[in-house]
Amino acid sequence: MRQGLLDTALDGAGAAALLVVAESSRDPDLAVFVGSAHLGQSFLLAAPGRTPLLGFLVDMERDEAAATGFELAGAAQTVLECRRRGATESEIWIAVLAVALERVGLAKGTVALAGRAPAGRTHVVIAALEERGFVFTDGHSLMLNLRKAKSRDEIDAVRRAAEGTCRAFRRVAEVLASAKRRGKSLRHAGRALTAGVLRREIALVLASHGLEQPEGNIVATGADTGVPHTQGADSKQLRAGESIVVDLYPKGLLFADCTRTFCVGEPGNALHAAHALCADALQTSQAAAGPGVLGADLQKEVCRLFEARGFVTAGSNPGTRSGYVHGLGHGVGYELHEYPSFRSAPDNIGTLEVNDVFTLEPGLYAPEEGYGVRLENLLLLTEEGAENLTPLPYDLDPRAW
Amino acid sequence: MRQGLLDTALDGAGAAALLVVAESSRDPDLAVFVGSAHLGQSFLLAAPGRTPLLGFLVDMERDEAAATGFELAGAAQTVLECRRRGATESEIWIAVLAVALERVGLAKGTVALAGRAPAGRTHVVIAALEERGFVFTDGHSLMLNLRKAKSRDEIDAVRRAAEGTCRAFRRVAEVLASAKRRGKSLRHAGRALTAGVLRREIALVLASHGLEQPEGNIVATGADTGVPHTQGADSKQLRAGESIVVDLYPKGLLFADCTRTFCVGEPGNALHAAHALCADALQTSQAAAGPGVLGADLQKEVCRLFEARGFVTAGSNPGTRSGYVHGLGHGVGYELHEYPSFRSAPDNIGTLEVNDVFTLEPGLYAPEEGYGVRLENLLLLTEEGAENLTPLPYDLDPRAW
Repeated sequence: MRQGLLDTALDGAGAAALLVVAESSRDPDLAVFVGSAHLGQSFLLAAPGRTPLLGFLVDMERDEAAATGFELAGAAQTVLECRRRGATESEIWIAVLAVALERVGLAKGTVALAGRAPAGRTHVVIAALEERGFVFTDGHSLMLNLRKAKSRDEIDAVRRAAEGTCRAFRRVAEVLASAKRRGKSLRHAGRALTAGVLRREIALVLASHGLEQPEGNIVATGADTGVPHTQGADSKQLRAGESIVVDLYPKGLLFADCTRTFCVGEPGNALHAAHALCADALQTSQAAAGPGVLGADLQKEVCRLFEARGFVTAGSNPGTRSGYVHGLGHGVGYELHEYPSFRSAPDNIGTLEVNDVFTLEPGLYAPEEGYGVRLENLLLLTEEGAENLTPLPYDLDPRAW
Repeated sequence: MRQGLLDTALDGAGAAALLVVAESSRDPDLAVFVGSAHLGQSFLLAAPGRTPLLGFLVDMERDEAAATGFELAGAAQTVLECRRRGATESEIWIAVLAVALERVGLAKGTVALAGRAPAGRTHVVIAALEERGFVFTDGHSLMLNLRKAKSRDEIDAVRRAAEGTCRAFRRVAEVLASAKRRGKSLRHAGRALTAGVLRREIALVLASHGLEQPEGNIVATGADTGVPHTQGADSKQLRAGESIVVDLYPKGLLFADCTRTFCVGEPGNALHAAHALCADALQTSQAAAGPGVLGADLQKEVCRLFEARGFVTAGSNPGTRSGYVHGLGHGVGYELHEYPSFRSAPDNIGTLEVNDVFTLEPGLYAPEEGYGVRLENLLLLTEEGAENLTPLPYDLDPRAW
């Protein structure tokens, strides 16, 4: 985290400081500061021109915290004193945050509040601190802006996650290409080929690359593919001629995100045409993505492309459940969905900039007819345009991979 | 989630309803209601004598939400209307929650607030709803109480996670037992045996059991074992004669949690004695755990046992960094740390009850001398006492496994 970037963001938000509260160092707003340190309940208080103050509530994490190089708030000692007099969890949080805020000299300034925490506790703790004269604003957008353009280390982490993701897709294609057909049923290694079987193969490849799937994945087949976020039950059997949508979003230190649509055997004409059109939309939008381009403008272009071919889109029919029903993409980083935004949005949150990492994922859905298609690449924006971090085939037919 | 349990909890908290706000269905307070449904930003509003109302903000998740059987709040439609008039994320949340609260007829009652959300947004949204006359209290303890005793399905999920965990430990023991020694250095498959090498083996076994490690793990060696929460860098080399603490806490639908301490080659006398004493403390406290027993009383007993052998403990020396420096255990479920508590605590949060799932994990640490020991079992409380879900050897020597 570059101090200059933080100072500018605070200034823009009219805040004297940033307070991140977190249940663990995996909180995206904390991870951007502390990387892979292993902390439980903790907070970070950053103000212009000073080293951020890091607080951790459990003394056993002192070596992990010290390795970050931040100034340490001594919160674990405050916790101990609080526990001695029987304080509740909320009272403990009020005490440690008040000590830190006073130490940084913020009794009068506005504090941008970020991080994730139990909602009930947040409400009680922040109300108590406001009674003491502190003033808090929502620091969520500030953090999303700070996290938007990636550092070199973050880009390396995304690349590693994307590489593992590509290997998992290669394995999916391999299993599908070698599946035995019995009528419409598919079989693998002597048993029915289900979404669960494919998920196990995916998990093994990702694990061997040090990746996990904290948000799960989508392995949807047939009618389930008609609704973009239906994950597909493990027990669902994969069948020839049906669309199979595989959407993987694993995480190392940062996330990757990629989708391909497969069909074993002959796809119907509608599925075939929708797939070709999605591949066209993906390549068109990818070529148009460059520094200074608005995500919302790319979304409009893809809507026009689909509408010209007779599909309903969310552009002209918000809320439509068939056709192109969602946005074109989203930023990817410590969170699966972050800036840049592809919605019509104020300020710079939708402007693509160098070192932004984001997806493009046009899709076409026909829930009534029981199929859906989505093709999604993960991209890194450079001066020269969008670099595809998931350079995989688009083919429906896994044998073509 | 049994309705009767919820009604009693609400009554006890003096609340007319429970509101859970969540960034995804993996939020522990939401997962206990919706299980493995695949939802993003969502909320649940529960009140006595009515089916809970489930809201999801993205229409693409309608099939996942419908499969839960809850009444649906129609929030995705409200979101669409909000977006049309350019509402911010906070304004959208205020709108969907106000609609739901009014629908359930809670304009005058107190609402217990639970779930996890961005802190800044929580602060803004709840303040706005309070201005409209709603009153919110912290529902965190209420949810921890609700989630304390596990259902049959939850126990099955914990058992599966514990089984995978045991398999991962067997693999760890196998790798350590077969490690080649070159002086004090250990080698595996022709290269240096590091924490990272062991982590990869662990991840593969866990993945093959459908488990992940959302909170990471601890593979600490040598001096790092002297500080209980130091995770151990991947690059750290494992060495003969040193303590190797492996603490795994993977998750399927629910978490498991288990720790063993190993030593390849001859342990020093102090390490050997500390290990034997921890095994004794674990077996003693395990035998004493039964319905109605207070977790804090077990902690006191273990402190007495260690103190009788000359070790400093957190019981008589809160804040000590050597000896027995932490609590005896914690409940395990949708969260890694939940009720029962092993701290001196009010009410029933520290009373062990049938179907509670919790750890017992005595440990002894000597950061100055560069070693630490911890032995941890995951237990299910039955009428007959504590059933060990992690029935693994305790031996330091992996060849004895």
